[in-house]
Amino acid sequence: MQTKHKVIFDTDPGVDDAMALYFALAHPDIDVVGITTTFGNVYVEQATINALYLTRIAGRHIPVAQGVNVPLAKAAGTPPDFIHGADGLGNLPSRIEVGGKAEVESAAEFIVKMARQHPGEITLVAVGPLGNLGLALKMEPQLPKLLKKVVLMAGAVDEPGNVSPVAEANVWNDPDAADLVFTAGWDLTMVGLDVTHRVVLPSTFFARLAQHHKHVAMDTLSHAVNFYANFYQSIRPDLGHACYGHDVLAFVWLVAPEIFETQSGRVRVAKEGIGNGQTMMAKLPIPYPQAGWEASKPETRVCMKVDAEACSKLIDATLSSNWLQAPLSN
Amino acid sequence: MQTKHKVIFDTDPGVDDAMALYFALAHPDIDVVGITTTFGNVYVEQATINALYLTRIAGRHIPVAQGVNVPLAKAAGTPPDFIHGADGLGNLPSRIEVGGKAEVESAAEFIVKMARQHPGEITLVAVGPLGNLGLALKMEPQLPKLLKKVVLMAGAVDEPGNVSPVAEANVWNDPDAADLVFTAGWDLTMVGLDVTHRVVLPSTFFARLAQHHKHVAMDTLSHAVNFYANFYQSIRPDLGHACYGHDVLAFVWLVAPEIFETQSGRVRVAKEGIGNGQTMMAKLPIPYPQAGWEASKPETRVCMKVDAEACSKLIDATLSSNWLQAPLSN
Repeated sequence: MQTKHKVIFDTDPGVDDAMALYFALAHPDIDVVGITTTFGNVYVEQATINALYLTRIAGRHIPVAQGVNVPLAKAAGTPPDFIHGADGLGNLPSRIEVGGKAEVESAAEFIVKMARQHPGEITLVAVGPLGNLGLALKMEPQLPKLLKKVVLMAGAVDEPGNVSPVAEANVWNDPDAADLVFTAGWDLTMVGLDVTHRVVLPSTFFARLAQHHKHVAMDTLSHAVNFYANFYQSIRPDLGHACYGHDVLAFVWLVAPEIFETQSGRVRVAKEGIGNGQTMMAKLPIPYPQAGWEASKPETRVCMKVDAEACSKLIDATLSSNWLQAPLSN
Repeated sequence: MQTKHKVIFDTDPGVDDAMALYFALAHPDIDVVGITTTFGNVYVEQATINALYLTRIAGRHIPVAQGVNVPLAKAAGTPPDFIHGADGLGNLPSRIEVGGKAEVESAAEFIVKMARQHPGEITLVAVGPLGNLGLALKMEPQLPKLLKKVVLMAGAVDEPGNVSPVAEANVWNDPDAADLVFTAGWDLTMVGLDVTHRVVLPSTFFARLAQHHKHVAMDTLSHAVNFYANFYQSIRPDLGHACYGHDVLAFVWLVAPEIFETQSGRVRVAKEGIGNGQTMMAKLPIPYPQAGWEASKPETRVCMKVDAEACSKLIDATLSSNWLQAPLSN
């Protein structure tokens, strides 16, 4: 029998982060034991507000630890409010009062503490820039042995990038942290644009779920997706009014790896120049004169293909289940 | 009727360079009006010696102008003598006496002079690191208008690199020069690993040609290919005793573009870090926040697919033709 995946969710909500969070809360095999926040889709303060809000309107109390507000080395940028809204959830017209506040400790401290308390038990699912994981690695070099596994929504190998022709946004937002993560030597899976761009979810998909549940949490998600789909329609009108699944696929991989095809190889991150933020993968076992590609570097399991229909069905079935509780009130 | 392509061949011979040169000399639609040399497969002095030797043993007098011996900005490396031999031609046991010497002017000066003398008529086929073209661009900013077109054996888009998982050797050897070339705005075609790795030529292919011609030039090429195939067998034993066509495909594209599939897009070169030397291509017309990918940048026609059988047959037919003359003697 499958024991539940004990998960810390590192996130910058963000519309697809909200989708991922609700999938995780709804899925019977996932136990979200904590949430850590980062800058990315929004400023980190807003990410923390949203993590608390999204969990508490769904009736769940989950510890939220606030993380980094800038990249490890790169200059800080401005959140893409035209994609996720200035509030990260498609500019909600109003929010109900649910209370809640963040932990005193930082995201990196929370990750390290939990990993030490539950050695070999915690899965870290990270779907934003990777500064919290980078800091946690610096605090506790044994972290790769203390965590059970790490799953990233990050990067692109064969698929074009979304912030440059070669770079995916999470990695591009903090390339230095990402390269630390890709070379740390844990059980690492990358769920990147090669698969997330295959899963297109129409805004009607979420409107239907909202209609089904008649619950503030699903109304919030549907509103957010609507805004997100407006953005995608502006750059990819061929997709219809829809969005990519992105972050939710990290959890789909966790519970249904059989619907993915993966390839393992060394992954490194370009940290300089106009190619910065690119995830480059060594697919062949041949030697290279370029330093940094030594055969001794750890490998990453990279998702290259996904059964998109099975993925959409699993998301639908999971979010349609009876998982929502009454919102918390302070 | 097809008028002949008036070609300056920029080269670092090199085994596949020799193959390319002989294809060009043998093909009725190509008129090689000059050769410029560069460091790369060998030191530039050896490249010049080989360009003179290869043309003159084939009975042809063609001007050879020596070019750059180091990259524009990157530190100089050491030629890969385990691939092409220390002499660039598979360590020939002996050479016949054919004389000949290089022009007084440098490669870049020769290119600029010829382009001014024959505006709009010269095609530049470059199959080594791109320092000569980079220098010529600095000397004559109008060069993109003075040349008819430029064809490069360089780079890789979807195909793994050969000096790193993402970089092709010619671009990696001088990324700064390559980025100048990819952004200069001429009629530019990139013939890279995406197609050259599809064309595998067995050493027996060249042994048969040598047997057919019984001429020192084809004996030399067959010897060189044999050495080159030893290297490929060491890293890709699945290919048999064979080599990739690489440089010769630049000329094949020139005379038979119909056997290729191309895609046009902005190509830039990574100049820093472990991804340096990578050719990155913008395949989609979407806007990116990363600077350097503005829609105004010039596009490159990139060869993505090739009919490998048609390519091999054309190389065979061309090199089998009656093109060789008695070696020159001083």
